[in-house]
Amino acid sequence: MEACQLTATEAASLIRDRKLSCEELVRSCLARIASRDPTVRAWLHVDPDMVIRNARELDKLAPVGVDPKTSLHGLPWGVKDIIDTLDQPTTQNSLIYPGVRTNRDAACVSVVRSSGGVILGKTDTVEFASGGRKALSRNPYNPAHTPGGSSSGSGAAVGDFHVPFAFGTQTGGSHIRPAAFNGIYGIKPTWGLVSREGVRMSSMTLDTVGWYGRCVDDLIMVAEAFRLPAGSFSGGPEGLRVGLCRSPVWSSIEPAGADALMVAAKRLQDAGAIVEEYELPGPFNHLHEAQTDIVQTEGGRSFLPEYLSSYGILAPDLRGKVENARGVTPEKLLASYALADSCRPAFDRLFGRGLDVILTPSAPGEAPEGLHTTGSAIFQSMWTLLHVPCVAIPVGRGPTGLPVGIQVVGPRMTDMRLLSIARALAPVIDTDPKAALRELWN
Amino acid sequence: MEACQLTATEAASLIRDRKLSCEELVRSCLARIASRDPTVRAWLHVDPDMVIRNARELDKLAPVGVDPKTSLHGLPWGVKDIIDTLDQPTTQNSLIYPGVRTNRDAACVSVVRSSGGVILGKTDTVEFASGGRKALSRNPYNPAHTPGGSSSGSGAAVGDFHVPFAFGTQTGGSHIRPAAFNGIYGIKPTWGLVSREGVRMSSMTLDTVGWYGRCVDDLIMVAEAFRLPAGSFSGGPEGLRVGLCRSPVWSSIEPAGADALMVAAKRLQDAGAIVEEYELPGPFNHLHEAQTDIVQTEGGRSFLPEYLSSYGILAPDLRGKVENARGVTPEKLLASYALADSCRPAFDRLFGRGLDVILTPSAPGEAPEGLHTTGSAIFQSMWTLLHVPCVAIPVGRGPTGLPVGIQVVGPRMTDMRLLSIARALAPVIDTDPKAALRELWN
Repeated sequence: MEACQLTATEAASLIRDRKLSCEELVRSCLARIASRDPTVRAWLHVDPDMVIRNARELDKLAPVGVDPKTSLHGLPWGVKDIIDTLDQPTTQNSLIYPGVRTNRDAACVSVVRSSGGVILGKTDTVEFASGGRKALSRNPYNPAHTPGGSSSGSGAAVGDFHVPFAFGTQTGGSHIRPAAFNGIYGIKPTWGLVSREGVRMSSMTLDTVGWYGRCVDDLIMVAEAFRLPAGSFSGGPEGLRVGLCRSPVWSSIEPAGADALMVAAKRLQDAGAIVEEYELPGPFNHLHEAQTDIVQTEGGRSFLPEYLSSYGILAPDLRGKVENARGVTPEKLLASYALADSCRPAFDRLFGRGLDVILTPSAPGEAPEGLHTTGSAIFQSMWTLLHVPCVAIPVGRGPTGLPVGIQVVGPRMTDMRLLSIARALAPVIDTDPKAALRELWN
Repeated sequence: MEACQLTATEAASLIRDRKLSCEELVRSCLARIASRDPTVRAWLHVDPDMVIRNARELDKLAPVGVDPKTSLHGLPWGVKDIIDTLDQPTTQNSLIYPGVRTNRDAACVSVVRSSGGVILGKTDTVEFASGGRKALSRNPYNPAHTPGGSSSGSGAAVGDFHVPFAFGTQTGGSHIRPAAFNGIYGIKPTWGLVSREGVRMSSMTLDTVGWYGRCVDDLIMVAEAFRLPAGSFSGGPEGLRVGLCRSPVWSSIEPAGADALMVAAKRLQDAGAIVEEYELPGPFNHLHEAQTDIVQTEGGRSFLPEYLSSYGILAPDLRGKVENARGVTPEKLLASYALADSCRPAFDRLFGRGLDVILTPSAPGEAPEGLHTTGSAIFQSMWTLLHVPCVAIPVGRGPTGLPVGIQVVGPRMTDMRLLSIARALAPVIDTDPKAALRELWN
């Protein structure tokens, strides 16, 4: 077994026991990247010499497992290239910012670095995580298909065993969808719990930093480093009240997505969970449209600088936001805010009254063919607008052999509890966690 | 008359008519800084050679007054040092980030630069605009007093005629209070209308970028460059319905602040405005506490990186945010959000029903003595939490000869209309706009 095949939890344990060095781990990751990235193209920037130097420095320190400050000791990270890094360029995959070095880590990167993590490199992304240029990244399971987006490279890099961890971001469905398409785990935390300092802003009230891993324990390890508010769930799936939520946009589902949801629900039911169809209250039907209005309008303010400085290079869809092509009036924007403001506490209140967790699609189906699209965000946009934590869990393979998944959703600020629930549910839902190793390893 | 004494509107007109060059204007500003900044200490970084080079480049271009892209042609700006600049360091007045060059402009700086503005330098600030080190800046009217904060240097620089424009930010009362203390005009726009990209984050849901000027027309010129949503008011003060709002924190007022409010109200009444006492609905009484909870909790997430990387250097008050010294539970935070969410549209709805604008204190009174404090934010925090636009207008001098002012407040997204109203009211309220020139010029 190669070190890059380990989950972060496994690698951290070996490092603590001095059976694996940080240098060995990053060399394994770098070798995997060297062999696979010509096909997968997850990375925009990797500096192997620097990464090895940094890993060697970490090997000189004694990792202290119980100290949350070093809990990520030696674990390699991919960083979506809209997120600033001290020692690597941040291009936002835009011709407007070639090779810019900000000389300062984004808040999330700084926390990882202080916790002992190794920043392995920058991953490809949809331009500004918003529009314009697509990533060149490909789906590890079939390079003719997208790995999803906008966190394209981060999703593919974790899915293809280049790194155990990567940061993504979500404004519509940019984080959870790539998790589903690459057969990995991911969390989009409650909005606001992880600082967005140093992360390219697209939408003031929606942008959220999340991370990918290859099991729930890995996600939890990072959540602890970020000190997400305490909370836990210690039971198993038996008796857990799962709300099966097709969501108001169910008409956009594809057979593969519907199957994934139903398979997950069946497996949970068979394991003793109480799975019941759950329909959200009427006002939630309008959240998707509200989210679209907000993304467009707030995006207009976010891209005004590039509109003024680089009109000729700025992509037409981003220009359209600045020009308010959708024609969203201030009154309509405020109405969208008001809808979200009323649905957020209403959603939180659903829990505890016969409901522990929502089970809902993470994407319409398998990853679409072609790199001209990253798939649809329609099954994530309302959850992003609700600011609620979402955890992506793989279900298996769809009809064309690509990964499919679901997401579980909980009320705001209960991320640690949701992750604990996900840890209990994951072995039931994701019945063949070693499939990726069989399928992606030559 | 020296060029640095001009308002931006006056300077822009002379530049358009080729009666003043950009180089002459910045040289005048630099001379003023050279003569006064040893006392006022508004600036953390000024590179005169670069500024002059940049101004000369602008002089080679023909300014086109009608093109909003060049509407700020040649006008010098101070930039609060928590805001990133392409060609100058951004230290956040913190020992944790000495001399960091981000090689990228913050969104607001980029818009100014694209509009032809000259970035004259970086102004001193409370560390991270949040806590820790105070600025060394002094009040131009009396160097033994604070210029306010956290936008200390920006307020002092505009007040003391170093630059016609400067950026500040507000999370509690960091923008409007320095306007009052330095006898200048300022706008805190509706939250979200101006991108915070590249601005040090302290509070996700509160931080707001604003700007200072020396008359309302100057503020409007910038608002147009930022394309704030259209809206106007074409009348005079006659018949304008002004709500005199002592606000729920009136017990914190000092005689100088109370006098300023009453003088402004009297002048408006004498000019034909309909001024009536206005008491906000009961739930608004709790906004100040909610704002404090939010600042503390969101600040905890914002300063986690420095807490982990630089614990020994991080100021105790900022450590306290990370450690949740205030003990704000997730439930209390969500309740604070919910209160704000319900008060925001309720406040917007007050307008149009017998109310055109709110007149309310901008600070308890004159600037306090000493540099250990920047004064109290108590008269601004609720407006920041409401996300509403606020315009600071000077009223005159208090009992110790320091400036006092008021602010006018309108509903969200109506910034241009509020500015138009402020333009109509300012000549009535600020009866001696040339006082600053007499008092500050040797």
